[in-house]
Amino acid sequence: MQHALPVTRAGDFAAWYQSVVDQADLAEESGVRGCMIIRPWGYGVWQRMQEILDRRIRDTGHENCYFPLFIPLSYIAREAEHVEGFAKEMAVVTHHRLKMIDGVLKPDPDAKLEEPLIVRPTSETVIGAAFHRWIRSHRDLPLLLNQWANVVRWEMRPRLFLRTAEFLWQEGHTAHASAQEAREETARMLEVYRTFAEDVLAMPVVAGEKPAHERFPGADNTYSIEAMMQDGKALQAGTAHYLGINFAEAQNIRFQSEAGELAYAHTTSWGVSTRLVGGVVMTHGDDDGLRLPPTIAPRQVVLIPMLRDKPEDAGVLEFCEALAAELNRASAFGEPVRALVDRKPGRAIDKRWAWIKRGVPVICDIGARDVAAANVTYLRRDQLRNGEKIQSQALARPQFVDQIGALLSGIHAALHAAAKQRLADNIRTDITDFDALAAHFSAGDDAGADFRGWAQVAWSRPEGAALAKVEQQLKSLKLTVRNAPLAQPPVSAQRCLFSGEPAREFVLVGRAY
Amino acid sequence: MQHALPVTRAGDFAAWYQSVVDQADLAEESGVRGCMIIRPWGYGVWQRMQEILDRRIRDTGHENCYFPLFIPLSYIAREAEHVEGFAKEMAVVTHHRLKMIDGVLKPDPDAKLEEPLIVRPTSETVIGAAFHRWIRSHRDLPLLLNQWANVVRWEMRPRLFLRTAEFLWQEGHTAHASAQEAREETARMLEVYRTFAEDVLAMPVVAGEKPAHERFPGADNTYSIEAMMQDGKALQAGTAHYLGINFAEAQNIRFQSEAGELAYAHTTSWGVSTRLVGGVVMTHGDDDGLRLPPTIAPRQVVLIPMLRDKPEDAGVLEFCEALAAELNRASAFGEPVRALVDRKPGRAIDKRWAWIKRGVPVICDIGARDVAAANVTYLRRDQLRNGEKIQSQALARPQFVDQIGALLSGIHAALHAAAKQRLADNIRTDITDFDALAAHFSAGDDAGADFRGWAQVAWSRPEGAALAKVEQQLKSLKLTVRNAPLAQPPVSAQRCLFSGEPAREFVLVGRAY
Repeated sequence: MQHALPVTRAGDFAAWYQSVVDQADLAEESGVRGCMIIRPWGYGVWQRMQEILDRRIRDTGHENCYFPLFIPLSYIAREAEHVEGFAKEMAVVTHHRLKMIDGVLKPDPDAKLEEPLIVRPTSETVIGAAFHRWIRSHRDLPLLLNQWANVVRWEMRPRLFLRTAEFLWQEGHTAHASAQEAREETARMLEVYRTFAEDVLAMPVVAGEKPAHERFPGADNTYSIEAMMQDGKALQAGTAHYLGINFAEAQNIRFQSEAGELAYAHTTSWGVSTRLVGGVVMTHGDDDGLRLPPTIAPRQVVLIPMLRDKPEDAGVLEFCEALAAELNRASAFGEPVRALVDRKPGRAIDKRWAWIKRGVPVICDIGARDVAAANVTYLRRDQLRNGEKIQSQALARPQFVDQIGALLSGIHAALHAAAKQRLADNIRTDITDFDALAAHFSAGDDAGADFRGWAQVAWSRPEGAALAKVEQQLKSLKLTVRNAPLAQPPVSAQRCLFSGEPAREFVLVGRAY
Repeated sequence: MQHALPVTRAGDFAAWYQSVVDQADLAEESGVRGCMIIRPWGYGVWQRMQEILDRRIRDTGHENCYFPLFIPLSYIAREAEHVEGFAKEMAVVTHHRLKMIDGVLKPDPDAKLEEPLIVRPTSETVIGAAFHRWIRSHRDLPLLLNQWANVVRWEMRPRLFLRTAEFLWQEGHTAHASAQEAREETARMLEVYRTFAEDVLAMPVVAGEKPAHERFPGADNTYSIEAMMQDGKALQAGTAHYLGINFAEAQNIRFQSEAGELAYAHTTSWGVSTRLVGGVVMTHGDDDGLRLPPTIAPRQVVLIPMLRDKPEDAGVLEFCEALAAELNRASAFGEPVRALVDRKPGRAIDKRWAWIKRGVPVICDIGARDVAAANVTYLRRDQLRNGEKIQSQALARPQFVDQIGALLSGIHAALHAAAKQRLADNIRTDITDFDALAAHFSAGDDAGADFRGWAQVAWSRPEGAALAKVEQQLKSLKLTVRNAPLAQPPVSAQRCLFSGEPAREFVLVGRAY
């Protein structure tokens, strides 16, 4: 069967991913190691995510602000002392001027910084320093901040969107008067992420707590939402951390309580990033390219006029423009529909395939016959083919306009339902011993495309040497513990698959990005 | 007369500016030299600007995208060879890892980059490299891109918003098939900035062309909008550059024309930055703090419940919440009104002054008496005082809700009119010789607060040695040529104030930020 992409998911999932990102005009390598160029269509998807999530973050009482790109080395050093497992792969600024030396442009030795600056890998340290200055009394709490920013973590094996040296994200940082309030905040933001993934990205996720050895360094608890990609691997799509008073102690964030006592604030942090774009690709893409949930599609409906250098062309263009204007007055998901007439030069058939690969939910080819019959012929990107054949549908124009909101909602629902089914069908719950786990995730093969999904297994929260042994076992199967789902059956008398000790909960294990 | 700020504009304008930025919660020093923390209220103002300008940039056909933070030194070196007057104050990344060496965290000598990376001061070079890859045919043109990003230019004398090492901005970059199209684009974006400044920021500006010696390095023409601050100095508030084929030649950006010939693309770039927030402060602020045009005020109406720990309090709160909900359903400037009930702890009088200093356009103190009478008592921030006295006004609640859109429009108009008057009144057009210019801008004094405004003088476009002499003269008066206004009277037989040669146009001169 012929598809729009040169590779298929089944053939080579990694190459397929690369191909969608390229063919859908999402992003490309920049020539700067590990840094990507987010192309207009990809940025449009990210900007839609941003708009919707920003609204939800503000509606839950958070305010946006902006902290510096650079963090003094001494701040980082303080954290490094404090935090075990502290990552050190960071971009270090050492000079503030270039100089032409013997005809070659070089860092000017006379402009060496007294203290090197780190390009922020995350902003806990610099925001904590501000919290220290800003928080005096319980009246200053809760302090609920968020920022949209770029961050840099040097990556040895970069992949577009999934793992890049520079990426875009939002990072929320909050301070509270009590552990309970901070825990509630952490749960609230995890839920904001979960519903955002489901309602906006049509991407089903499992919300749960990370096991101790997968926590953010310095956190008391780390929670995540995990999504299942079409190769069965997990993508950590968002995290929320309850930081206890660990950062407050390190950064001296204290407040006068109502009773007049000095107490450490309880802090949280939480974030999602441009990685979500990669998650959407691997959740919804097919062998013809990207399929976008209508909520985040920069254009939801694209009208392609089929022109033949004939007098009818003017009528076709007029019909398209009038239809687009009418659609843009209609509403979907409580917002105006985003329709576009593609008037660029080029053949209609090439344009059609370009928009298919970009994942536009509804693509209309409008020809003179449609104009004459006042019809709209359209493709649903989520139901592109019937067997091998591309299937188009037609509606009378007024019906099409009337139904566009419902059509787009239906596409969202169909994408969501298919992904939910895949998630539900591919979590094994019947594996109770390591041999069975090893058999399922047979580690020997290197056929990356082989679909294995996840397993939900009993877990005793091993520590120390016992944990080290478990990590060894997991590693031999290329597995990690993703999280302990918040919604899970009672564990009753089960024993931990790894340690054999009485289980405390179920966790999901799987391969991951 | 007692004011809310510790310093007045007349007393010490620079200190007053600092005080507004601080007291209105706009921004603060971060501890990282030259980098600011944009606080929530300041970021809210910037985000409003962003939302509105982003819409206008997209409505004129541009697409957003994102290019890397880091630029390889070799790209910069290529530009440095090409461009005279190339600035070299940049942050240079030389290492990609930290290492604990003898108990001290340091850049890891084993992780030195083969080629240093520059933190972008602007993105012409990296975007030009992408244009080179993306542009093949005239069908790929025009290419109309924009990005919202942070940039870094090392600053020796930083000032919050006005001149910071890191700042936020948008940078537009476009490529066209002909000089004419590129020139039209440059003019279009300058006009987008001009109308944005006037309609959204209520900040009158003069749009014009920069003289040759003030051009962006590598540009054929540089245009700016210039605003007059309340100390009479000019603030360059936005620039648009027609780059000719200079960057295209340096970066080999060529396309096959319709005739089949290979030709260089004509490029443009244009940008505005967080500097605009400083411009709004110095255009509209008064001795009681900031005054925000309602279009960019994060909150346009703040309701302060006056609570007395009495049973009536519940009714006051209820009245406030219901009123805020009603206001948020009303509309101003074609958008929903943004009203807030300030329920934070604290005395009503302190809250009132905090919101006055933050520049909220309409501030309502709501007490039990208002509730009983179904009245709304409010302050217009732009007409705060009558003599020394704070003047509040009252309207029946339904009238207040009915009129809120008109009230906010009226505030915008009043702020705009006052600033326009100041601009119009303070451009001297009667100065025709250097002695008179020197007398007006008497250079000897160092009383920064002394208001001098600008002068519009005849200009012969001197070059070479003649220009060097003129620059010397200007420097002796701390003046610069701001621009040659697009709208100006015919220059007829006048002679250049500086060179005595026949004048080619009028230019504005003034002191500047």
